[in-house]
Amino acid sequence: MAQRPIITLTSDFGLRDHFVGTVKGVILNIVPEAEIVDLCHSVAAFDVLDGALTLAAAYSYFPAGTVHMVVVDPGVGSARRPLVATTERYEFVAPDNGVLSLIYRREERLRVHWASAQHYFLRPVSQTFHARDIFAPVAAYLAKGVAPAKFGEEISDFVRLDLPRPQRLDNSSLRGTVLKADHFGNLLTNITPQEAPVLLQPGSAGLRILVGEREVAGLKTSYADGAAGEVFGIVGSMGYLEIVANQASAAQILGAGKGCNVDLVLSRPAVAG
Amino acid sequence: MAQRPIITLTSDFGLRDHFVGTVKGVILNIVPEAEIVDLCHSVAAFDVLDGALTLAAAYSYFPAGTVHMVVVDPGVGSARRPLVATTERYEFVAPDNGVLSLIYRREERLRVHWASAQHYFLRPVSQTFHARDIFAPVAAYLAKGVAPAKFGEEISDFVRLDLPRPQRLDNSSLRGTVLKADHFGNLLTNITPQEAPVLLQPGSAGLRILVGEREVAGLKTSYADGAAGEVFGIVGSMGYLEIVANQASAAQILGAGKGCNVDLVLSRPAVAG
Amino acid sequence: MAQRPIITLTSDFGLRDHFVGTVKGVILNIVPEAEIVDLCHSVAAFDVLDGALTLAAAYSYFPAGTVHMVVVDPGVGSARRPLVATTERYEFVAPDNGVLSLIYRREERLRVHWASAQHYFLRPVSQTFHARDIFAPVAAYLAKGVAPAKFGEEISDFVRLDLPRPQRLDNSSLRGTVLKADHFGNLLTNITPQEAPVLLQPGSAGLRILVGEREVAGLKTSYADGAAGEVFGIVGSMGYLEIVANQASAAQILGAGKGCNVDLVLSRPAVAG
Repeated sequence: MAQRPIITLTSDFGLRDHFVGTVKGVILNIVPEAEIVDLCHSVAAFDVLDGALTLAAAYSYFPAGTVHMVVVDPGVGSARRPLVATTERYEFVAPDNGVLSLIYRREERLRVHWASAQHYFLRPVSQTFHARDIFAPVAAYLAKGVAPAKFGEEISDFVRLDLPRPQRLDNSSLRGTVLKADHFGNLLTNITPQEAPVLLQPGSAGLRILVGEREVAGLKTSYADGAAGEVFGIVGSMGYLEIVANQASAAQILGAGKGCNVDLVLSRPAVAG
Repeated sequence: MAQRPIITLTSDFGLRDHFVGTVKGVILNIVPEAEIVDLCHSVAAFDVLDGALTLAAAYSYFPAGTVHMVVVDPGVGSARRPLVATTERYEFVAPDNGVLSLIYRREERLRVHWASAQHYFLRPVSQTFHARDIFAPVAAYLAKGVAPAKFGEEISDFVRLDLPRPQRLDNSSLRGTVLKADHFGNLLTNITPQEAPVLLQPGSAGLRILVGEREVAGLKTSYADGAAGEVFGIVGSMGYLEIVANQASAAQILGAGKGCNVDLVLSRPAVAG
Repeated sequence: MAQRPIITLTSDFGLRDHFVGTVKGVILNIVPEAEIVDLCHSVAAFDVLDGALTLAAAYSYFPAGTVHMVVVDPGVGSARRPLVATTERYEFVAPDNGVLSLIYRREERLRVHWASAQHYFLRPVSQTFHARDIFAPVAAYLAKGVAPAKFGEEISDFVRLDLPRPQRLDNSSLRGTVLKADHFGNLLTNITPQEAPVLLQPGSAGLRILVGEREVAGLKTSYADGAAGEVFGIVGSMGYLEIVANQASAAQILGAGKGCNVDLVLSRPAVAG
């Protein structure tokens, strides 16, 4: 039996209005057998980086052939282009504003087309709801098997955002930043073990972690390792350093959130390896 | 291949409790192959008009044959009737409180049945959760192919709500109202180009827009046309005048929301056309 | 036609992050034809009892064969065991922390297996996201037809939580507690007609209901029976006494919520029956 097409939706639409429902209607009208999966609709409003992070955390767990539609689109109605990006396993539909940047960085086989063929759009195209009029029908026709090249010319000058990278302050310290606070109050940072190998050694006596001016407990392996009220670091499920607490909100305890500095300081030279 | 039945759900249940999940279980127990689509569950609590607007914005994008179930039901447990409404392309299941008023107004071919045949209900019928005990099973049996007339007699005295209409204050001004603020803080009004043809002419020098006492910038074509912090009007994707800002919340900037007056004033007679 | 497998999801993940989307991806990657149903993702964070109540309210409405996955998991990364529980009609996947306690109590045919067979897990297993790495794949393989015994040994020492039970204060009064406030501000209590048969007699003149120190109106049959602003009791759709108001929030009017005392007092001996 041929597998039904799967389309995921990621947006900053929230769930208060008809937006998500309308988009699903448009898709099902074109490809009624599609399975539509809400990846997340609570991306921070207009926050392209937050959309990129949300998508990057989840997309690779889906079956090959999945179409991922991502609409965080502060430039709706302007000249920014709608895109179809194709990787080895997936197809992506999104505005050309960098929301696919982490896909571009991680995927080796990548082709990007400018979706300009208007006969795939809903007509008339509104100036304010391209998710309904452009992105949803393009995603639906992709899921139905229309080849990416049918939607428009291949391009290479698509927008790539730079994720904020940790900075080395000196030989023994690294400064990262909080990318977001999640539902549980965990603070996701941009620091990975690749940039700070000391993170691979939980319990390392030499490692100090500061969030803003405030020092938290060192690195542990799981939430359950923390004492009540203690704030500490773990390497989380996405591979980034997270500042967390055991059954409590680190964000609330620290009064910290997106954009806060997170410093790793080695009080003595790290041992080799 | 026969298309699987599609059922959409619109309610004021929110997502904090088991209500939506329970309704889905009831439907799937009757028609396991159904595709259930959440249209929106964040209609303002007990707000029949808000439910009517949410449904009206989305329903027509779905494939023909879709069953739309709408439960905003402040009168649950009272004598208000459960309805099955049938139009050319869709079937609707809802309480008889006016939540289908915009459907009644827009659809030419319309038949309404009072769903009174209790053998389609879950028994015993609770006094507080008719979505589970009455509306969900009726929607499921409809999706399964049971004819509307099987559920009860056809009626014509169903409840129709009047949407608040804009009022002409004098020859050169029109007063509308804010119907709702959406997730982005856009203020949806009840004014359309049909009632105010000047809205078809963005950039019209003569048009002033006031929200309460406060004048905002004139009419533009898209969000992207607004300067930072500027509040202005657009004709939105639903065909109504909306008061918006570019990547910001007009509701927050103005401190305005549902029920605020919105006045259109022509400072000189409109040109013909 | 063989019925497609249905998997429901209940969690405290909220909808702000990628968590729910990622879990769905993992499931669909293993069993692409599965129908995934969100039962509720707004269980109070780390609140196992709230998860148990949410699941208990909804699970039995689903078709036989449904797999219910429940992840409220404050002990993630600790030694608590992942479980597969099997009843006459359903399969459950959850951490062994008592979140299935109401299932254990209600279902007569029950077998519980410790899901320890790591070849069903995603590898490497993170310390912080077992929903993705353990529970989702186990649920998916169950839905695909893998027998519960394949996941690990049968056990009988699984964790059972005691739901708070009402206490008899004296011959004429019973003290219960508020289990939760729902989206509408209804206060769900732990008192049922089994424990307080007087609840089966709405309008009983002798029954007084107090929430904390404050007396509310007596027992009615439906929301619609209440006057504006009046707070009163009903036996709700889950079979528990609820403290409610007609189109208003009892929680807000009373300033009451989870954990508040609710006293039933009979001002004279109840009549027989």
